[in-house]
Parts: sequence; C-alpha cells; structure tokens
Amino acid sequence: MAESVSGQAYGAPVEKPAAEAGFHDPRSFVSHDFEEHTADLGEVAMNYAVAGSPDSPALLLIPGQTESWWGFEKAMALLAKDFHVYAVDLRGQGRSTWTPGRYTLDNMGNDLVRFIATVIKRPVVTSGCSSGGLLSAWLSAFALPGQLRGAVYEDPPFFSSETRPLIGQSIKQSIGPLFQLNSVYLGDQWRVGDWEGMRKAAATHWAPFLRMIPFPPEPPQNLKEYDPEWGRAFWEGTVAQSCPHETLLAQVKVPVLFTHHARHVFPETGNLFGAISDIQAAKVRELVGAAGQPIEYVSLPDAAHAMHNADPERFATIVGDWAKHLPA
Amino acid sequence: MAESVSGQAYGAPVEKPAAEAGFHDPRSFVSHDFEEHTADLGEVAMNYAVAGSPDSPALLLIPGQTESWWGFEKAMALLAKDFHVYAVDLRGQGRSTWTPGRYTLDNMGNDLVRFIATVIKRPVVTSGCSSGGLLSAWLSAFALPGQLRGAVYEDPPFFSSETRPLIGQSIKQSIGPLFQLNSVYLGDQWRVGDWEGMRKAAATHWAPFLRMIPFPPEPPQNLKEYDPEWGRAFWEGTVAQSCPHETLLAQVKVPVLFTHHARHVFPETGNLFGAISDIQAAKVRELVGAAGQPIEYVSLPDAAHAMHNADPERFATIVGDWAKHLPA
Repeated sequence: MAESVSGQAYGAPVEKPAAEAGFHDPRSFVSHDFEEHTADLGEVAMNYAVAGSPDSPALLLIPGQTESWWGFEKAMALLAKDFHVYAVDLRGQGRSTWTPGRYTLDNMGNDLVRFIATVIKRPVVTSGCSSGGLLSAWLSAFALPGQLRGAVYEDPPFFSSETRPLIGQSIKQSIGPLFQLNSVYLGDQWRVGDWEGMRKAAATHWAPFLRMIPFPPEPPQNLKEYDPEWGRAFWEGTVAQSCPHETLLAQVKVPVLFTHHARHVFPETGNLFGAISDIQAAKVRELVGAAGQPIEYVSLPDAAHAMHNADPERFATIVGDWAKHLPA
Repeated sequence: MAESVSGQAYGAPVEKPAAEAGFHDPRSFVSHDFEEHTADLGEVAMNYAVAGSPDSPALLLIPGQTESWWGFEKAMALLAKDFHVYAVDLRGQGRSTWTPGRYTLDNMGNDLVRFIATVIKRPVVTSGCSSGGLLSAWLSAFALPGQLRGAVYEDPPFFSSETRPLIGQSIKQSIGPLFQLNSVYLGDQWRVGDWEGMRKAAATHWAPFLRMIPFPPEPPQNLKEYDPEWGRAFWEGTVAQSCPHETLLAQVKVPVLFTHHARHVFPETGNLFGAISDIQAAKVRELVGAAGQPIEYVSLPDAAHAMHNADPERFATIVGDWAKHLPA
C-alpha cells in the first residue's frame, strides 16, 4: 500500500512524493505496539490499529489535529480489556492518504462511515479528542442509521474552531494562531518546512499563548505525520464551511458523553486558552438535549486536552463506566 | 416518513414546515408512473423509484438541478427492458430531505454511496444529467471500491459551474445568473417565493440568455419540489468549495461515457449558453484519460440539455449500447 498512502491522491498519477522541491518528505514513521492495517475506502486508504477481543463491544478512537492513531496507544492497552478497539488515522494524519483541498468535517466523517460499514461492520461507540471529538459528534448526527451506540466528545472545540461561531470565541480567538503558523511555516503537505522560522514567529506572535507552547528544536514525530493543510482548512474556515456546528449538534441521534478539560479565558482579551469555553459547552449541552438525546457532561478542569494520552487510566475509566450503561 | 421528508432536518425538532412566514410550503406533489420509496440514510431520507427486473444489471439515475427523479420517468420505461433502474431525489430535490447550509457535491455524493451500499447492494452503472452528471463523476472517483461498474456523464457542467474554474467560463459566465435569480427571488427553502418578481428581473437582467428561457405564469412542478438554496450554493461556490473539478476528474476509477449536448459561446462576450464548452469538455477527456480510464466522448450538438427527458429513446439507446460492453 506504499503508493496509496504516500500522499499522491491529488492530481493525475505521478511518481514523486507529495513533498518535493525545498523539503524532504516529512513522513518518516516509527514502529508501535499494535500492528497497523490499511482499509481502501475509495478516495482514502485509511491506516488503523486494533486491540482487544472481537467478542467485546466495538469502540472507535478518533485522534485530534496534529495527532495520529498512536496517541491512543496507552489508552488502547487499557480499553482492550472491555472493548474491541479500533484507532484510525484520518485523511491527512499518520499513514492515511493526504487529500489536498479536501479537508472537511463532512469528508472526514464520511470516511469514518465507510470505515464502520466495511471494517467494523457492527454498531460501535465512537470516542474522539479535539477535532476527533467534532468527528465523533458528526457521526452521532450523520452516520448511517444503526452504526453508532453512543459517542464520546473528548474536549471538542465546538464553536471555538469556527471562523463564524454561533457563540463565544472564534478560532482566531483561540487555537487558530497555532494552525496559522503550521500552515504558513510548514506549508500544505510540508512544502515550506521552515520549522525554525515557525519557532521564531511564535516567540513574537500577537497571540501570547504561543509562548506557553513548547517548540522543540526539531519537529516531533506526530507533526511529521501531519499535513499542515489541515491547519489552513481550520484557519480559513473551509473545514466547516458547509457544516455549522449548531446544525450538526441539533441532529444528534445517540447518547453522548462530553468531557470538558482545562480551559482559561484571558480576562484582558476574552480569548480562550483551551478547547472550548464554558458558555460554548453549555450551548452544546442545550442543543444535544433539544435533539432529544441524553448528554452526560463531565467537567475536568484539571485534565490535559489529550487526557487519553496524558492520563490514560482516567480516560479509560470514564469512557468504560459510561459505555457499560449504553443499550446494546 | 412524512415528517422526515418535510424539510425539517435543520435545527431542533419543530412542528412547522420549512417554508413559513410569507410563503406557503411549495412542496405539493403529484403522482407518477412508478411507486416511490424512502431510504433512511442518516441525515437524509432519500426518495426513489425503481423499474425493471432485479435480474438485470443495476443502473442509478441522478437528476440535475431543478429536476426530480421523475424527469427520468420516460427513460426509465425504456431502460427497464435491460436494467434494474433506480432513480433518486437528491437532498434538496423532490421528496428527499432539505438540508439548509449543507448542499455540497461531497455530501450529495456520499448520500449516493450510502444509497448504493444499503439499497442497491451490488455494483451499479451511474448516469446523471447536469449537476447529476457531476455526481456521477464524483462517484466514479470517490465511491467505495467496487460500487461502480461505469459512469455516464450526461451534459455535465464541469468547470462552468465553478466560481474559480481551471479552464473556460465560470458559473457567472454561464448558467449562474439563473441560479442567482432562483436564490434571490425564491429564497432558501422558498422563504421569499416572489415568482413574479423573478420573471420581471429576468426580463431586464444583464444576462441576455435569461430572455431565451421561458418563465410560465406559475412555478412549474419541478421547481416547487426544489430548494432554491441549491442555486445559491452554486452561485456562491460553496457546493464545490472543497471539491475542485480537476481534483475529482484526476481520480476517476471506472470507464466513462460523456455525452456533450447543445452549446453555444456568444461571440461578443465569450459567455456560454449550454452546460459545458468544447475546451472544457476536452479538459475532462484529458484528465480522465490521464487517470487511466477509458472515456467515450459523444458530441450531440443537436441534443437538449436533459436529453433523457426530451428524447428518451436516443438517451436509452446510447446508454444501453455503451453499458453492454462494460465488464461485469
């Protein structure tokens, strides 16, 4: 499958790697605890790993932006006790196909509909973090009937990752500047690749929160597997252009667990440091409730954004305890 | 299924029809020769009709903008001899769900992926006219592996229905002004409903081709079943925002039949009257060929845009003769 996951889904068949002239292909991979597989979903060859027994309930784990499936590696080892666990790379993540010009919630969500239909092949609980949480929600609204039993939204950036949010901080007033830097200094498909330039820009950027994020001397492995065009799609708003978050949330069709992690609103600007503010979280609860679905809200102001990676025991316990009460 | 196809997929459950205040719900339906069915695809309840024997090869017919499935009614009667024929209403057409804010090629295409997977359940030949031709092409590029045997593009507006086309006339230089009028004078979900105002605007509009289109005193049945927000999505470009036509065409994976109907380029403006100009058609052939797929091009300068309706015998013969040579 080397060719089909080499980022060449764009344009007529060519032999060269996606990242040419001026930068080496960033995608050097490392090995992991779980074996990796590939599913041909049509446009996208989706990379994934599996843990646990097929006799257990199915659980689909969806990583966030700048993350790959193996961000769930430690959590998978714990969850495998109670679930048949699938963790995937979305388009533009990890070893899955890069699809320039086509990074939208709708396309990513429909990739997962296809993955559930052709690989998992039975009702599943979905759990996604950050952008993956948006997609877990997308599936809870728009998947094929019967595909989902329930959905976990792990610290999802509802409204805060939109350019024109219904409520609260926009992406420019939250994490957006980081994605803008990724987009400008790394470039679509890493065509720019100026890591040092990004470090310098972060040090003097108008968004002070960038000084609170560590930039190591070299790009970390997760970023090497990430198409920075994802960041541009969020920064420019094309990712949710035809999927306003309130439209999605008003159509949720299964029970939801929403974990809300550390967040801070800077008093002097009103800007958000964290995935989603309290008023935005309240709107999520209101809309899912109005759609007729139970939503369990767990506020964890001391939890890291990627709790599944920072504190996998806590994550596995919360998800496991909630999921065991879902109807089969 | 009355509620689920009444246009209320937008927002929390409400009792009122989509078209409220100021205009009656435009969707009064008429009966047809073939029985209608509904498939629950998750977000959309898709209306469709079937003809022919399940023992024959499957054929999926996809209508164009401002058309419903029954535009194929006469052709279905002829094609039923050789095919098991399905004709559908897309989201925003006919009796299928209206989805405000969410009219994109990607969403419509994925609805059809779901329809093939859950209703047809075997490999199919697709044939779509106009916007339906774009979707037949979308499926030929992006459907699940094995879903398609071949795809017919009946007079598809490649490039000419984009706001920033790779080549040739843009939507503003072709059919766009008509969709703009639909959008402004009928309004999203027919909320404006000023048919008489549209007739007057067409008579003095800067696009002279609008004087060549008949506007009857009352909206025809096909328009009554059409969400004019479709027109706005094309006029504003959101319909293909994350699906540039060249990106799609470069990924076609099955044999193609492309029928190119009447077209005229006005010498004094270079604007297009017709679905697609000759240089745009040449680019379609080049891109599909570069993708490694055979494309049969049939130029029919005397054929109506909706040949399947204006001359169903000719349409059924051309499609039937081509399809019989496809690999099973």
